[in-house]
Amino acid sequence: MAITELLPLRDLQACCAPITREVISEENAVSVARAMKALADPARLRLLSMVAAHADGEACVCDLTEPLGLSQPTVSHHLKVLSEAGFLSRTKRGTWAYYRIVPGSLDVISGFLATV
Amino acid sequence: MAITELLPLRDLQACCAPITREVISEENAVSVARAMKALADPARLRLLSMVAAHADGEACVCDLTEPLGLSQPTVSHHLKVLSEAGFLSRTKRGTWAYYRIVPGSLDVISGFLATV
Repeated sequence: MAITELLPLRDLQACCAPITREVISEENAVSVARAMKALADPARLRLLSMVAAHADGEACVCDLTEPLGLSQPTVSHHLKVLSEAGFLSRTKRGTWAYYRIVPGSLDVISGFLATV
Repeated sequence: MAITELLPLRDLQACCAPITREVISEENAVSVARAMKALADPARLRLLSMVAAHADGEACVCDLTEPLGLSQPTVSHHLKVLSEAGFLSRTKRGTWAYYRIVPGSLDVISGFLATV
């Protein structure tokens, strides 16, 4: 049975205005919440922003640490959270690791915002 | 001194591609993270979605509790978090409280997504 079928829509219409648009399913709400939780940190938002701001959409880890004013292990931890959540991809070339934003990875959040 | 002036942009250009777009300021990153934290819960996302789905953008608290399958105190807690974070406005009429999404309150998040 689909998640949306579990929602008793009749009750939503019981006392005031009727429902005229689709309500997010429980399953989707869990996905959006998980994505937002992974992003909801100022350092992680700034890291994503820094990666996106680089000319070719790729940033070397060596360029990300110092501007944040955080220790290298802390930056590595945040990069790991962003990678594990699917927002960043990581490529190693020579000494350095390079990060890119995974295309479409923010769509789960922008899609939710578009519906409300 | 503006927050953005604290960012040593020279360092960002030290080893790989140059910075070609604006990086989110520390101050904005804190605002976006705070907004995402307030939303990053499946029940709160579903509440916002339910309010938005009502025909006139207004939902009675009596319509929101049962479909979520959560206790009334739990739903009240989530509505309070969303109201305090500025996403929902609350009006009392007679016995019931009615909730609306505050126009533009999600712009802080969609604005960030647009830049990355």
